[in-house]
Amino acid sequence: MSKVYNFSAGPAVLPAEVLERARDELVDWHGSHMSVMEMSHRGKEFMSIAEKAEADLRELMKIPDNYKVLFLQGGASSQFSMVPINLLRGNSKADYIWTGAWGKKAIAEGKRYCDVNVAASSEAEKFTTIPDPSGWSLDADAAYVHYTPNETIGGVEFHWIPDVGDVPLVADMSSTILSRPIDVSKYGVIYAGAQKNIGPAGLTVVVVRDDLIGQPVDGQPVMFDYATHANNDSMYNTPPTYGWYFAGLVFEWLKDKGGLEAISMINHRKASALYKTIDDSGFYANPVDPDCRSWMNVPFTLADPELDATFLEEAKQEGLVTLKGHRSVGGMRASIYNAMPEEGVAALIDFMGEFEKRHG
Amino acid sequence: MSKVYNFSAGPAVLPAEVLERARDELVDWHGSHMSVMEMSHRGKEFMSIAEKAEADLRELMKIPDNYKVLFLQGGASSQFSMVPINLLRGNSKADYIWTGAWGKKAIAEGKRYCDVNVAASSEAEKFTTIPDPSGWSLDADAAYVHYTPNETIGGVEFHWIPDVGDVPLVADMSSTILSRPIDVSKYGVIYAGAQKNIGPAGLTVVVVRDDLIGQPVDGQPVMFDYATHANNDSMYNTPPTYGWYFAGLVFEWLKDKGGLEAISMINHRKASALYKTIDDSGFYANPVDPDCRSWMNVPFTLADPELDATFLEEAKQEGLVTLKGHRSVGGMRASIYNAMPEEGVAALIDFMGEFEKRHG
Repeated sequence: MSKVYNFSAGPAVLPAEVLERARDELVDWHGSHMSVMEMSHRGKEFMSIAEKAEADLRELMKIPDNYKVLFLQGGASSQFSMVPINLLRGNSKADYIWTGAWGKKAIAEGKRYCDVNVAASSEAEKFTTIPDPSGWSLDADAAYVHYTPNETIGGVEFHWIPDVGDVPLVADMSSTILSRPIDVSKYGVIYAGAQKNIGPAGLTVVVVRDDLIGQPVDGQPVMFDYATHANNDSMYNTPPTYGWYFAGLVFEWLKDKGGLEAISMINHRKASALYKTIDDSGFYANPVDPDCRSWMNVPFTLADPELDATFLEEAKQEGLVTLKGHRSVGGMRASIYNAMPEEGVAALIDFMGEFEKRHG
Repeated sequence: MSKVYNFSAGPAVLPAEVLERARDELVDWHGSHMSVMEMSHRGKEFMSIAEKAEADLRELMKIPDNYKVLFLQGGASSQFSMVPINLLRGNSKADYIWTGAWGKKAIAEGKRYCDVNVAASSEAEKFTTIPDPSGWSLDADAAYVHYTPNETIGGVEFHWIPDVGDVPLVADMSSTILSRPIDVSKYGVIYAGAQKNIGPAGLTVVVVRDDLIGQPVDGQPVMFDYATHANNDSMYNTPPTYGWYFAGLVFEWLKDKGGLEAISMINHRKASALYKTIDDSGFYANPVDPDCRSWMNVPFTLADPELDATFLEEAKQEGLVTLKGHRSVGGMRASIYNAMPEEGVAALIDFMGEFEKRHG
């Protein structure tokens, strides 16, 4: 087996070219005789790495000047608290759109800080769709509206941006950030754990409109105040320097690929081909409303669940790994983030066809 | 210049052998065709990495079974909040021993949660010593006693463990953990940012006695409750997997070096040689009480501060880098953590002698 395609939902596959470059630079970064891991975060070498990463991310996402970009720790799970802590600003109410497992976690943590209004939910449809916005019970006085543009477990994705008027829109983009162009100006806060489309786990990127910074709930950790980080260029304390560096390499790679327009076309092709294979088969099935199928995470089941173990074992023999579905939904899941090459998806599609012929 | 010795206070030098191994394994870990960064944290490959790292740390530090070891994010700055959040347990008072800049930060954050009693301080001595314990005003009813065994900026280190009776003792060991054997059973909580003696920035190791877990202050982030992590083997959310892996390589390296007894003898030799050079010179000076000079961070000044820039420039020419003292104290600082080889300290000592001859 010479090649492996890793369909993990996260931590996930990283671009091969980036891994090779990181390897080549690991012991001695650019003739400094130091690893990036060994550099003071306040030294000129690391500062240049940090600044370039932010500049490249701003360019890729076209982030307006009135947004801060923060390189933090703690994952989306920390943002579930940081969002209410920072965005309530004296208000006691927030709206949440609930379309899956991650939304549920955000809601649970939000309830520790405010009255959560679940303005829309697809729970009755087992999170296989997105409720029509005409039926959302948004509160014009809510401090913010939180949603999850891509649900990693259910494989449900928004292919549009909710219109929530003047209320700040907050998005947990962990599993969809950088998969396509988005209009950042529509958002109050965008956050994402790095371990899907950005880099190694342990880095969290937060893009926050600057007028939303500076009025945190009293008596909360100083590290959970966006101002702590915004006022110190994400260096109030030692940042996760290696993750920040690695993210910068991924941003460069994305620019070399042609940016978010280009990667979005590739992502669309990869997802379309895989969904077509599933739909055309009569053997594989995906339960999600076609209008909101995820480009990033494709869950599917086999006609006979008894074959699941065989599928996984034979796939592994072909170098197709980490395809087991999340324990809460079963079946399979192919996560096909930016770094999954089209050849990987093609290999999976070939294997699925062969498997169906033999077992279908 | 073929070799560089990096005296950064953190992120700091890492063992050369560990960096080389990490490089060799970066793209393909043990024939898995995956980088450690790409592995699901719940997969068997990463689980084996995580478990071995914890087992090795337990062996190195002789951590008793009634202590949990947590692999977290957020640095010591997050622990400044997590300690009161978890250890107050209905109490409203805590004691802090103040011996430098990091203790000051811990106290400032502690005050957001409770009545802080500064039971001892060396502020009047400009943090060049440790107050004699006979004069400490400890409160037997305090929820805990917090101290900083090594102050990275001032270069002041406890070479003994405070006796605080039955009150849980809490230590910010960021810059001294693993530098020598310690009796973990004397502590309630030990925490350390990784970026000095453990591995890359972005990982925080917490060792906490299990009876202190589970009574957090209400209304605080779920991520700041030790129980959240202790009950999920530090995988409540995606942990900083690469840092955890790298820490495991450092723990293996330490075991190969003979463990903490062996490294402590090396550390003592390195520090003694450097302090002797300073004291014998009449040109260099270290202001710290000899009884509490740090083995890890050695600040020193030149007889003529006008020579500082020349010293730094000439040192750099010799491959001795990141020697500039912290802006709050000026002068020089040589951080000589576990990974700084004795040859590095010898090279610095040689250079200091040469520099004194030319400029003294």
